[in-house]
Amino acid sequence: MAQKPSIPKGTRDFSPAEVAKRNYIFNTIRKHFECFGFQPIETPTFENSETLMGKYGEEGDRLIFKILNSGNFLYNKNKIELPSSIQELQTNSAETITLEQRIELNRFTSRISEKALRYDLTVPFARYVVQHQNEIEFPFKRYQIQPVWRADNPQKGRFREFYQCDADVVGSTSLWQEVELVQLYDAVFTDLGLKGVTIKINNRKILSGIAEVIGASDKLIDFTVALDKLDKIGEEGVKNEMLGKGISEEAIQKVQPLFGFNGTIAEKIEQLSSLLASSQEGLKGVEELKFICENVAEIGLQSAHLDLDVTLARGLNYYTGAIFEVAAPAGVAMGSIGGGGRYDDLTGIFGLKNMSGVGISFGLDRIYLVVEELGLFPETVTSTSKAIFLNFGETEARYAMKAIAKLRTEGVKVEMYPDQAKIGKQFQYADKRGIPYAVIVGGEEVENNRYTIKNLASAEQQTVTFEELLKLLK
Amino acid sequence: MAQKPSIPKGTRDFSPAEVAKRNYIFNTIRKHFECFGFQPIETPTFENSETLMGKYGEEGDRLIFKILNSGNFLYNKNKIELPSSIQELQTNSAETITLEQRIELNRFTSRISEKALRYDLTVPFARYVVQHQNEIEFPFKRYQIQPVWRADNPQKGRFREFYQCDADVVGSTSLWQEVELVQLYDAVFTDLGLKGVTIKINNRKILSGIAEVIGASDKLIDFTVALDKLDKIGEEGVKNEMLGKGISEEAIQKVQPLFGFNGTIAEKIEQLSSLLASSQEGLKGVEELKFICENVAEIGLQSAHLDLDVTLARGLNYYTGAIFEVAAPAGVAMGSIGGGGRYDDLTGIFGLKNMSGVGISFGLDRIYLVVEELGLFPETVTSTSKAIFLNFGETEARYAMKAIAKLRTEGVKVEMYPDQAKIGKQFQYADKRGIPYAVIVGGEEVENNRYTIKNLASAEQQTVTFEELLKLLK
Repeated sequence: MAQKPSIPKGTRDFSPAEVAKRNYIFNTIRKHFECFGFQPIETPTFENSETLMGKYGEEGDRLIFKILNSGNFLYNKNKIELPSSIQELQTNSAETITLEQRIELNRFTSRISEKALRYDLTVPFARYVVQHQNEIEFPFKRYQIQPVWRADNPQKGRFREFYQCDADVVGSTSLWQEVELVQLYDAVFTDLGLKGVTIKINNRKILSGIAEVIGASDKLIDFTVALDKLDKIGEEGVKNEMLGKGISEEAIQKVQPLFGFNGTIAEKIEQLSSLLASSQEGLKGVEELKFICENVAEIGLQSAHLDLDVTLARGLNYYTGAIFEVAAPAGVAMGSIGGGGRYDDLTGIFGLKNMSGVGISFGLDRIYLVVEELGLFPETVTSTSKAIFLNFGETEARYAMKAIAKLRTEGVKVEMYPDQAKIGKQFQYADKRGIPYAVIVGGEEVENNRYTIKNLASAEQQTVTFEELLKLLK
Repeated sequence: MAQKPSIPKGTRDFSPAEVAKRNYIFNTIRKHFECFGFQPIETPTFENSETLMGKYGEEGDRLIFKILNSGNFLYNKNKIELPSSIQELQTNSAETITLEQRIELNRFTSRISEKALRYDLTVPFARYVVQHQNEIEFPFKRYQIQPVWRADNPQKGRFREFYQCDADVVGSTSLWQEVELVQLYDAVFTDLGLKGVTIKINNRKILSGIAEVIGASDKLIDFTVALDKLDKIGEEGVKNEMLGKGISEEAIQKVQPLFGFNGTIAEKIEQLSSLLASSQEGLKGVEELKFICENVAEIGLQSAHLDLDVTLARGLNYYTGAIFEVAAPAGVAMGSIGGGGRYDDLTGIFGLKNMSGVGISFGLDRIYLVVEELGLFPETVTSTSKAIFLNFGETEARYAMKAIAKLRTEGVKVEMYPDQAKIGKQFQYADKRGIPYAVIVGGEEVENNRYTIKNLASAEQQTVTFEELLKLLK
């Protein structure tokens, strides 16, 4: 193979410094997950296709990576017909394929592929809960930090392989969970030094209430998308867009208070109460929001801000209560760095009814970019060995290795340059690796049972005993 | 879906306790990898098929999991013919397929699949080194802890998804690396409490030397397999097996010393020196072994034993120098729990010549079983929350949540039972979760600003201030 090797599009290699920084974020998230009583689980990289297919809509099904069956995957005891149009399928790209051909292709796919890569962590978690329901104590607070795969078109910041970090509770409808999840976001981002994130909260029931009041459930997305532009295009602009989308003048009038929707959370809640007075579901949503926001405020957050945002409308297909989204601190241009919500029927798809769940997710890649941009990675995160022992030949190397072995049992990260190369080359290696100290052990040091340690930044050096060396490096 | 969901054969779900125990082993290995100067990298879960195919032999190619192309995978601009025997392939299982059909099937497979799951960590590492050669300082000491996938038939202890933990150095032929890798095994297993493992060492060049001496390179495997049975079937038995495999009486005579091959490593090395006197390569192997074993002995190991084992013949297709294998402590019936060796041309397959590498691997699943069997997992590994606050209603819960928030900022793992359930049920939950303390905050505690903490094992309880509570739980 003459060509320089490469990796599939949308995937990444991670260098030592990148792994160290990513692990720093993972470890911070993991620490707080555990502090809040969440327990880790892990599920297989691939699931049976039937577990995943049909759970993410038609678009999702298309984006799931499928694994070819092993052996002769064309073999079929049941003599299912091959696609009659298989020859034609060769001439039509994915874009020009007919509906009939797509159906045949899907049937053929499911014949030659029975496993697929994890697309998110939620469906495997639901499958886990149902499969292991007799071993689990409910409410079950689980966290899961694993990669997922999507055959999306890769773009800046969007990959085909990426990690999700999820914490969910199932088996309790208590709103204290929502309170804790807000605190959990606050704890993690404060610990990462990412102070001043905004945790936006909304409630699916409030959105349903608004739809009820404007008399148009099908226009809810158009409505929130338009309302979200209030800052940019002003009240008139928003109203014109709404009218353009077929929302009536009368309906807009009914929710007029949303155009001047600001003030404290308490004030917003009061406005919502009167606005949604005619919607029972809407009022239920207001009550839930009130409980969560009041308790979060009373217990207090470390550095994050909680904000009620009625335009927050993510995950409308599955969220049934609270909806969360986290925005990076002001001044950092970045989409949401976290999101979540409550879904009342997590495990119903696998036959276990009445299992309410609520959870949040941390977007590792974006958090990484923000922490990097703000220079918040501690320097120690990427530190390699504390010292490198230079190699002056076999006898000296053996003397060095004895010291190294002792230092390592004390937990000190040290290494020896493995070859008796030119000293300049060895110093250069230490420099490029970012190792702060070099230890020089030539014939004289061996004879006197000493070590010459050189600070590579200041070029200062001193000759010391082993005990002094240990003290310096520890 | 009425049927209880399941996972693909050969894969596993990991429960909270299992994840905790696995992470304990991973973290121990990672700690020592880093202490020895190894740096982490991570590579994508799937590679381009051409990166993996042909690197693991015909058997390996078959066991690689292939990912179906996205979209219309049958589409082909270049109008490559479909297998003419595609209809026949439906009637032949993988076992009865003809060679011609297999070739057609492979061609078809490579048309509809261009990516494949990582099969080991060595080939992706080689690919990484070549692709990133200009960013890497050599010698490059890297470690990698990631899962790999093989379409093997699952058996007891053999899975289709499992982790590998590898540490390798590339870009140096120094034998000090081998010395360090022996010390690294010793450090990890000592830290895991797995004292008394045997690190077996051999050298590919010694095996080549033996083959040279017996005049039959092609019989080397037969020879070592037979010799390995010496303990079980005795000298006569071994010799008969060798004769049966076509190794001549004369050849056996030449290596007679191997039948009484015991004593100290120094004695064994002396025996090998005279036995392999006529083989230049064999003597080179003896010299290498001598350097490694003498230096390991002089620097000392913490608890492991190093043993020279001339029957150790793993990885003969790629190892060119030292060969390692680790056996569990005496009394534990378990195959090797680690292995490795030196390979002189790691990156040649990707066009970068003269890049010698040496590395070792830790077998997580087997180490887990041994640590479990010997009861060596520290109890703290699986500990969940330190205390659970019982839920007596909204006012009390708010009071509890304030204490919980403060305890968590002090790093104490605590949680609250989310629902106002019957107290018996809440205690039962704490018990099943293995949480050691319950904190009771009823109306009286709230009024007096106190907390009643109950040790769930001894049933002792006391009412304390927040400061005392923190002290007790920290």
